[in-house]
Amino acid sequence: MQIAVLLFDRFTALDAVGPYDVLSRLPGARVVFVGERPGPVRTEVGSLALTADAALSEVTTPDVVVVPGGPGQRAHMGAGPISDWLRAVDATSTWTTSVCTGSLLLAAAGLLTGRRATTHWLAHDQLAPLGAVPVAQRVVTDGKYVTAAGVSAGLDMAFTLAGRIADDTVAQSIQLAHEYDPQPPYQAGSPGRAPREVLATVQARKEFILN
Amino acid sequence: MQIAVLLFDRFTALDAVGPYDVLSRLPGARVVFVGERPGPVRTEVGSLALTADAALSEVTTPDVVVVPGGPGQRAHMGAGPISDWLRAVDATSTWTTSVCTGSLLLAAAGLLTGRRATTHWLAHDQLAPLGAVPVAQRVVTDGKYVTAAGVSAGLDMAFTLAGRIADDTVAQSIQLAHEYDPQPPYQAGSPGRAPREVLATVQARKEFILN
Repeated sequence: MQIAVLLFDRFTALDAVGPYDVLSRLPGARVVFVGERPGPVRTEVGSLALTADAALSEVTTPDVVVVPGGPGQRAHMGAGPISDWLRAVDATSTWTTSVCTGSLLLAAAGLLTGRRATTHWLAHDQLAPLGAVPVAQRVVTDGKYVTAAGVSAGLDMAFTLAGRIADDTVAQSIQLAHEYDPQPPYQAGSPGRAPREVLATVQARKEFILN
Repeated sequence: MQIAVLLFDRFTALDAVGPYDVLSRLPGARVVFVGERPGPVRTEVGSLALTADAALSEVTTPDVVVVPGGPGQRAHMGAGPISDWLRAVDATSTWTTSVCTGSLLLAAAGLLTGRRATTHWLAHDQLAPLGAVPVAQRVVTDGKYVTAAGVSAGLDMAFTLAGRIADDTVAQSIQLAHEYDPQPPYQAGSPGRAPREVLATVQARKEFILN
């Protein structure tokens, strides 16, 4: 089972690494990080690079496709090599998945038309114009398409997917090995739960966060 | 504020990237990934490399030190450049932190002697022989030392630390931007909550997971 994780300049690190660290533990999984060119690809913060070990042209029939989000996704929403690659690999994938604004890339490539999907809460209004059916849920599964909400939701997406690809016991074993028993010190992780001033602060930075 | 994230061969990706993706958003933060040699450093799964942008000798007075865990930490528990570096940077750090078995590296370097600390639940019995006082908690703060339990606990550690370094509003804003409102599809993330057969499966793989 080949799992391809897409990288592009200015992606969000946790979007890619959360699912990687879960899905790479599945029996028989071979993960490959793929980019337009092999080599280091920088996150949007700039102080971290992940290595793309393969070029797009080298990964043609992955079983699972993982598309992270991040401000850099915007540059690839139109026609271009990443959009072409997504359409090509989706034709034979078993699962096509995304984290955060990665779903906007899938939608812009025409892969979520009429499909239920989610994305970062700040970008939720961008799904419908791209043909998807927005659902305000942390993880949304529609057929073989599994989309996650913002950044950290990729972990919940990955455990959901692990259960579907393998079984509940395997997924739970990875969860226990990763000690994924979250205890956030604050309860501000969704617009509905965050204090009003926190919500206002983040909304005011919307363009910076998304672009 | 310089935040140094240590990399070594066969580290666990999420241990490093979880805290990075949170702490790098702090106002004034400059993160640097540091390794014995600059260049790509592979995780224990092997299919992902993160770039160390600096050698140990280039990062001498970071304000915050983040030490991930992973099977590769064992090779550095004795005398050697990483142990020397940890002692040197700890002498002037404001915060010295770890995720998962990273605390064993700190303890082996003599930095947690008599300090309350935690680690991956499978390795908890290794803390006391190294001089630390084991605490079965997801995040443990003792003075400037903040240690986290296994893998994903690095996220909770990072948000705790963000609140201490900045303030609650800043930490909550990062939490909301990262949509960290976890909803695990399974409740198997701690030994006490996992089904018995899942616990047995992971315990049977203890040596593989830790080494």
